Amino acid sequence: MVKIIAINCGSSTLKFKLFEMPEETVIASGMVDRLGLSGSTFELKSNDGKKIEFQKDVKDHNEAVTLLLKNLVDSKIIDSLDELGGVGHRVVAGGETYEKSTLVDQHVINNIKYLSIYAPLHNYSEARGMEAFVQANPKLPQVAVFDTALYSQMPEVNYLYSIPIEYYKNYGARKYGAHGTSHRYITGRAAEMLNQKLEDLNIISLHLGSGASITATEHGKVIDTSMGFTPMAGITMSTRSGDIDPSLVLFLMSQLKISDPNEMADILNQKSGLLGLSGISPDMRDLQKVEDTNQRARLALDIFVNRIVKYVGSYVAEMGSVDVITFSAGIGENDAEIRENIINQLSFINAKIDLEKNDVRGEEIDLTGEGSAVKVLLITTDEELMIARDAYEIGYLNKE
Amino acid sequence: MVKIIAINCGSSTLKFKLFEMPEETVIASGMVDRLGLSGSTFELKSNDGKKIEFQKDVKDHNEAVTLLLKNLVDSKIIDSLDELGGVGHRVVAGGETYEKSTLVDQHVINNIKYLSIYAPLHNYSEARGMEAFVQANPKLPQVAVFDTALYSQMPEVNYLYSIPIEYYKNYGARKYGAHGTSHRYITGRAAEMLNQKLEDLNIISLHLGSGASITATEHGKVIDTSMGFTPMAGITMSTRSGDIDPSLVLFLMSQLKISDPNEMADILNQKSGLLGLSGISPDMRDLQKVEDTNQRARLALDIFVNRIVKYVGSYVAEMGSVDVITFSAGIGENDAEIRENIINQLSFINAKIDLEKNDVRGEEIDLTGEGSAVKVLLITTDEELMIARDAYEIGYLNKE
Repeated sequence: MVKIIAINCGSSTLKFKLFEMPEETVIASGMVDRLGLSGSTFELKSNDGKKIEFQKDVKDHNEAVTLLLKNLVDSKIIDSLDELGGVGHRVVAGGETYEKSTLVDQHVINNIKYLSIYAPLHNYSEARGMEAFVQANPKLPQVAVFDTALYSQMPEVNYLYSIPIEYYKNYGARKYGAHGTSHRYITGRAAEMLNQKLEDLNIISLHLGSGASITATEHGKVIDTSMGFTPMAGITMSTRSGDIDPSLVLFLMSQLKISDPNEMADILNQKSGLLGLSGISPDMRDLQKVEDTNQRARLALDIFVNRIVKYVGSYVAEMGSVDVITFSAGIGENDAEIRENIINQLSFINAKIDLEKNDVRGEEIDLTGEGSAVKVLLITTDEELMIARDAYEIGYLNKE
Repeated sequence: MVKIIAINCGSSTLKFKLFEMPEETVIASGMVDRLGLSGSTFELKSNDGKKIEFQKDVKDHNEAVTLLLKNLVDSKIIDSLDELGGVGHRVVAGGETYEKSTLVDQHVINNIKYLSIYAPLHNYSEARGMEAFVQANPKLPQVAVFDTALYSQMPEVNYLYSIPIEYYKNYGARKYGAHGTSHRYITGRAAEMLNQKLEDLNIISLHLGSGASITATEHGKVIDTSMGFTPMAGITMSTRSGDIDPSLVLFLMSQLKISDPNEMADILNQKSGLLGLSGISPDMRDLQKVEDTNQRARLALDIFVNRIVKYVGSYVAEMGSVDVITFSAGIGENDAEIRENIINQLSFINAKIDLEKNDVRGEEIDLTGEGSAVKVLLITTDEELMIARDAYEIGYLNKE
């Protein structure tokens, strides 16, 4: 029995979850927010009801890690730091360098920093989180769990874009996908729920949160995914455009007199999607509240469903058939209306949803309707658990 | 009985085809090439074997039209200009202004020039072609036949992008589609070949030339198409990228230090697609010659087929079912290998192709294989005939 921390660092946040392994029990979780800004906050909740919350300026990831470790001991959630057996870190971009979760050393940290050209907002912070733990305890094994690793098994035909191939060779311009840790968890759980082998199933997993992606897993092997070179591509998201005509990017730069590519990227990442279409909110729930009277809210919801239906169609075509469709993440787990609308538009594969069972939020359940040719599952995704598992296996047990 | 000319103007070309209507007999065809450049050429062939070819500098569309009309009379293909009953012009971009073919007047010409923001290489030349005919004979009725008109019936959910909706309102940023005149011909012919009503069929039409597009026609109504704001979007083409992650456009501009959006557009329009992937040729036939020994040629061919299969899947999902898949244009009409590869990957709809019948080029034929759940048709597309029909109906008969 050992304790493992799963860490998710953003530019101004450090989220953590403490597990007891191999039992996979969550002992505590929390976050340090507003890192490097004034009014940073610390929050720690344990599963036996302890809660520590305070405000205190925290200048960087180093200080956040020190604070976290101190409070875990002070609150007696752990008796001493010796109980910790490993740390797992979510890493957004592993490029083509990392095809699986990897034990962290300085070389790996340097690579992760280098790969921040593919995820400027994330990778650098994640590397700093690792350095902070090295400083706190250099002997504690750390494991980097890459969001992109799952997609390293995609066939060339799907990861290459139809652009001059030198751009792939020289700049790494290819599809990397995202949310891989979530899709890995989901597809594994789907097989378990159905009591079947992953290798015997064709699964289309819908990770529908404010960022959203769809992945096709054919007989246990990921063959395609909706996110692309970055998480901007694919279906309509809360504030991201998803796929658009590439020439439209250039046309808008001309019309809007934008010369900085980052400024244009900001529009397509932050001001598009449900927010841009509706002009109301990036939050699905806000749109649903007014959809009966607000035409633009209705339209944004319809487009969200439409793009998902089209991706599902393209993946059914690629795999030749589909056995399971899964719903996960914020919208997928909590929004019965969206789940119903999607499955109702999948008549071409004779998918049916049980409306009674579908009246549920955030609970793992088989939603398959009577006479459905496809299993429909709601799976509460758990990226932190996957991160803790990899940290336990590769870090603590040192099995790679 | 009357003669109608179908005209297709490019920036340095004027192609023409002369029809006898309503019989729809082709009497003559040809082109003026290298307009405004040195060494312009004129070519005119009649269906009774006359052929006129010469080289002579032609400075603009005006001069080209004068030359065309003079040679039609001089060669006695027509006895006098009075035999001409109308002219039809292909127009690439009709924006949201033109939902159908339209009788040309100065106002229409001005609009077409204005709409060249959506098709800089085409619309302006097309408007000049119209002006040339006004100058030659102001009484000759002219009809503008818009490539985009067919797509004006698409539902909002498919023509809008998930970007701030102001860009649609202020700059017309939406999906317009392309090849509409071809898809209109193809779907009409498909219904005729099958002796069924267009309204009773769900058709996915594959126009596969050096530019390529896929259109979904549900019960006679176009609901979606692969080309987007411009013809850059959709499937992999000879030199065009088709869909890519929009952020990749911006990343490449940064990496390649490109600040001019037109320069980036040029790469994605002229240097991508089959050419960019293979590094060999934009021509499918060149790639097929070496596919057994050249891995990149093989890859480009595989990606071409893969993107088509995915679009077909997404349109089957949208329509709920498909009755007919059609092949047209240069590749679609002449490349048996590509047709076979595509249909073989559509097992999810149980589509089958008759391999014996498929051994054919440029001939209208039903290729449906035994036991296929979907009709597979090869249709030799004829945009010029559609243009002549509209010019006859709307221009000569003046029925709108």
